[in-house]
Amino acid sequence: LKKRLSKQAYLKGIIENNPTVISKAITLFESSLPQDADLTNELLQELYPHSGKSLRLGISGIPGAGKSTFIEGLGKYLTSLNQKVAVLTTDPSSTISKGSILGDKTRMESLATDPLALIRTSPSQTYLGGVTMHTRKLILLCEAAGYDMVMIETVGTGQSESDVKQMTDFLILLVLAGTGDELQGMKKGIAELADLFIVNKADGDNLASSMHAQQELQHVLSLSTLKDPELRPEVIVFSSLASDPFSSLWHTIENKLNYLKKSGFLDNQRKKQNIVWMNEAIKNQLLTSFYEHPLIKGSLGEMQRQVSEGKLSGIGAAEELIKIFKSNN
Amino acid sequence: LKKRLSKQAYLKGIIENNPTVISKAITLFESSLPQDADLTNELLQELYPHSGKSLRLGISGIPGAGKSTFIEGLGKYLTSLNQKVAVLTTDPSSTISKGSILGDKTRMESLATDPLALIRTSPSQTYLGGVTMHTRKLILLCEAAGYDMVMIETVGTGQSESDVKQMTDFLILLVLAGTGDELQGMKKGIAELADLFIVNKADGDNLASSMHAQQELQHVLSLSTLKDPELRPEVIVFSSLASDPFSSLWHTIENKLNYLKKSGFLDNQRKKQNIVWMNEAIKNQLLTSFYEHPLIKGSLGEMQRQVSEGKLSGIGAAEELIKIFKSNN
Repeated sequence: LKKRLSKQAYLKGIIENNPTVISKAITLFESSLPQDADLTNELLQELYPHSGKSLRLGISGIPGAGKSTFIEGLGKYLTSLNQKVAVLTTDPSSTISKGSILGDKTRMESLATDPLALIRTSPSQTYLGGVTMHTRKLILLCEAAGYDMVMIETVGTGQSESDVKQMTDFLILLVLAGTGDELQGMKKGIAELADLFIVNKADGDNLASSMHAQQELQHVLSLSTLKDPELRPEVIVFSSLASDPFSSLWHTIENKLNYLKKSGFLDNQRKKQNIVWMNEAIKNQLLTSFYEHPLIKGSLGEMQRQVSEGKLSGIGAAEELIKIFKSNN
Repeated sequence: LKKRLSKQAYLKGIIENNPTVISKAITLFESSLPQDADLTNELLQELYPHSGKSLRLGISGIPGAGKSTFIEGLGKYLTSLNQKVAVLTTDPSSTISKGSILGDKTRMESLATDPLALIRTSPSQTYLGGVTMHTRKLILLCEAAGYDMVMIETVGTGQSESDVKQMTDFLILLVLAGTGDELQGMKKGIAELADLFIVNKADGDNLASSMHAQQELQHVLSLSTLKDPELRPEVIVFSSLASDPFSSLWHTIENKLNYLKKSGFLDNQRKKQNIVWMNEAIKNQLLTSFYEHPLIKGSLGEMQRQVSEGKLSGIGAAEELIKIFKSNN
């Protein structure tokens, strides 16, 4: 069995922002051992009263949109204002054993070595409860550890944005001009989720096309019928090559956030997210206890084969499996 | 208690395509009483070997795209070829008690009075297992009753297309030129789901813009990278005002279907759908037995209040509720 700290040692270390303990706690959270899951849940209960005070910022965009550079730039800007910044990313190609953290530290080297910053990449395929549930747990942990800003990066695939939207206060979508991204954005239903669009790499030869993309996006967004026009996402062009680019960008974001706070929108959104979270946790725990049940594990494969080949109906197979599960629980 | 037939009477009546018995069986399927759910599942088990032989056709499009007229026209064309046609639609605005069937009979009057056709509108909000699970059950019933074609209509909202795609062999998306529909289609991620695009109402003043929309859609679709180019959806312009419009349309659909059959694609798709169906049935049954549990019903409201207000974590509340559920099951 792996060596674990005591619950009190985890708690103390997290709340004191001790990097070693935080790292060990995340390893605990990533474990699939049942006793680790129990300790994780106990810890989360204790951490919960210390959580909730950060700004949760989602950053999305297709590969190549410049997410890493953007996150690192914004992160460095915020740490220069003495804010503590946590960055949570998902690596779809990695598993825990492959050590995805290394890859990400290389990606955002300057932020990774900043004592006010924490970067953590989660493998996406490993958790029983799914990456969404895992990321939510990490958000609580980071908040209890005193991070003022938690950035959650996601690769634009539609579903992932929708998941990230459900766990963040504000979702930024990075797009590029002239790569069909605007269309991709629309295609995946992301447009309706984003709070701010950033046409990235708007410099040099790209500037004119970026401004054109900005206009196109603004037009598309103007067609949506939001009750509160203040909630309509802005579209800005952005270049990390400009002088002090993140200062004015942060000003834009803060203005929008202030409105969302004052109008009660953020508060209300978090309340709804809490309920979503509860229901997802229920669903995950029910499904996990089902699919991890030894008797289910033993008969699922054969059932699937019969269902796939049409010998048994899906509903019939489900009935049988549920009966096995209920009478042995 | 409502009057029910015996299981044997339902079976006989369904397999003999007796309209009165079919209607009573659907009423049984719509019931939320536990004993009705048991009888429904028993019936489905018996019907299953008689199912699977129809073509399952999904029809989607935003309101106003002309779905009813299209479905009625195609349905009448098929019954004129002596095919039995079932149409399953969902009425998002209705509940069982409001009698949504009437509304739909008015909508497709000529098909509704055709002895070879069955039209059934399901209220969308009523079922424990959700409308998707209910529609799957109706598909099996219609197939056991000998319908050669089961058309499933859905209003384009992204999620519903995705659900319908999972239960049909072939999904047709109706779009209109010049109403921003092409964009809407892309926006919702529907483009990747459809097997055939029909630019509808392509006549009179609409013809030129419809052909332009066709080109646009073809361009968008040409960007997608499908392994088998034969699987790329066609985009056709269509007018129900043309002479014998459904004859050539059906020819197009049949050509495509023949390719999908010969290549093994349809068979393979159904196998995958069966597994999806099984897993959804498991999820639904687990969630239903949880949320319908008297002790959960009794404590859920208070838990939700506390979670919503941040007094209790979502994970913590889920833990507590699951404990209550497991120790009383």
